[in-house]
Amino acid sequence: MIVRDEINNFLEAEFPQINGDYEIINFSSENISILNHISQKHLRPGGTVSGPTMFALADVSFYIAILANIGTHRSVVTTNCNIDFLKKPSPVNLIAKPRIIKLGKSLIVGDVFIYSEGINEPVARANLTYSYR
Amino acid sequence: MIVRDEINNFLEAEFPQINGDYEIINFSSENISILNHISQKHLRPGGTVSGPTMFALADVSFYIAILANIGTHRSVVTTNCNIDFLKKPSPVNLIAKPRIIKLGKSLIVGDVFIYSEGINEPVARANLTYSYR
Amino acid sequence: MIVRDEINNFLEAEFPQINGDYEIINFSSENISILNHISQKHLRPGGTVSGPTMFALADVSFYIAILANIGTHRSVVTTNCNIDFLKKPSPVNLIAKPRIIKLGKSLIVGDVFIYSEGINEPVARANLTYSYR
Amino acid sequence: MIVRDEINNFLEAEFPQINGDYEIINFSSENISILNHISQKHLRPGGTVSGPTMFALADVSFYIAILANIGTHRSVVTTNCNIDFLKKPSPVNLIAKPRIIKLGKSLIVGDVFIYSEGINEPVARANLTYSYR
Repeated sequence: MIVRDEINNFLEAEFPQINGDYEIINFSSENISILNHISQKHLRPGGTVSGPTMFALADVSFYIAILANIGTHRSVVTTNCNIDFLKKPSPVNLIAKPRIIKLGKSLIVGDVFIYSEGINEPVARANLTYSYR
Repeated sequence: MIVRDEINNFLEAEFPQINGDYEIINFSSENISILNHISQKHLRPGGTVSGPTMFALADVSFYIAILANIGTHRSVVTTNCNIDFLKKPSPVNLIAKPRIIKLGKSLIVGDVFIYSEGINEPVARANLTYSYR
Repeated sequence: MIVRDEINNFLEAEFPQINGDYEIINFSSENISILNHISQKHLRPGGTVSGPTMFALADVSFYIAILANIGTHRSVVTTNCNIDFLKKPSPVNLIAKPRIIKLGKSLIVGDVFIYSEGINEPVARANLTYSYR
Repeated sequence: MIVRDEINNFLEAEFPQINGDYEIINFSSENISILNHISQKHLRPGGTVSGPTMFALADVSFYIAILANIGTHRSVVTTNCNIDFLKKPSPVNLIAKPRIIKLGKSLIVGDVFIYSEGINEPVARANLTYSYR
């Protein structure tokens, strides 16, 4: 498993547009958690967090879990994401917990649960497939 | 079917953060097309359009197709999106073509094909379910 | 939570065609496991279990988890299943572990992991949505 | 494109358990249709066709569309299926129309619409991904 700083440096270079939105708050081989700082640009009328915000968080979190497992020197792309929106999130920060279920020879499959900070029930659950070489 | 201006006004109010990113370029009961103006903020290293950009386009396009069918006075939320990323998009504008497959009593199911402007093969295909009341 | 016998009786009536294929091997509010007795009719050339066998097991297992939670007197139908086939199963019995993630007012969302008996890594993972009234 | 007889022979060998259930009723590069003969074993109480029957039809139909494109000598496996059940099918034969959307170097993506024979609105829509080598 690579170190957290290496991933942070990589993300700053790879995703400059979103730099500062995400923070790795847990990082071990057993447990990775990513916090998404929610601000005005992520909200929708009615005071809820937008769907694309949750999709982006699922995608970047799972990507970080992959980097943690295979390093930053491989070419990795999302091939599929299936996301269920389970309940309306409050307008607070989101926490994502990615998990790798299968690390195959060319496909990586897993899921991400997304929570409003401080609330136990998930607001969304995503299943992702990445291909890599 | 409601008129295009009514939808444009509604989108400006509902999604102020993305105002100007999207343009309805076809709008009939048979054929709706939405153009996504791609700029620096939508790109990733390697000169490709980000996954969250395509997800957001799929979501807003299908939402517009729903509004066109049921009007703007109902409460509608995305419950699921399954998106396949089929090929790396060029760094050009995207065109989305949403289609409603089932307009049920509480669920609306359909798909959206996304194209790089001027290219025939889709770069992504999304299937969406919305619930409404 | 209803008792196991009530569910067994219900399944015999509801699914006479598959009677005997499935066995509830764990049944508590925390942990439901369903065993699928694999025989010649479930196999494919190469000595593997067919995809439709795994789909059917995911569907019936999640249905049993729903019955355990809401009883047998409601009308419940599968509206969506997203299933990932993770590795080729051995030609042995399968074990399914269903889990309800959201029990909403009209939709129930959850997942099912499927294992070859005696092997730790899942062969398939399904996400299901049921609607009920 | 290979000939229909070659596919029929291959299916008889590959899927002996289901021999006779399926019939290729259209077979051209533009249009493949598969009929599923529905009998007692495919039904559920209430006189409807079971979900696993529709899943199996989607899977075999898409497989036939793949064989038609790449021949019968490659190793092909289903990696994902996302199926929406759109309306309760009548207890009559089903017709499936598979379509390949992307024929990549290692992944094949497409969809299958399923109809009750003689009825215009689909009863199910499946999206499938196969990997091959």
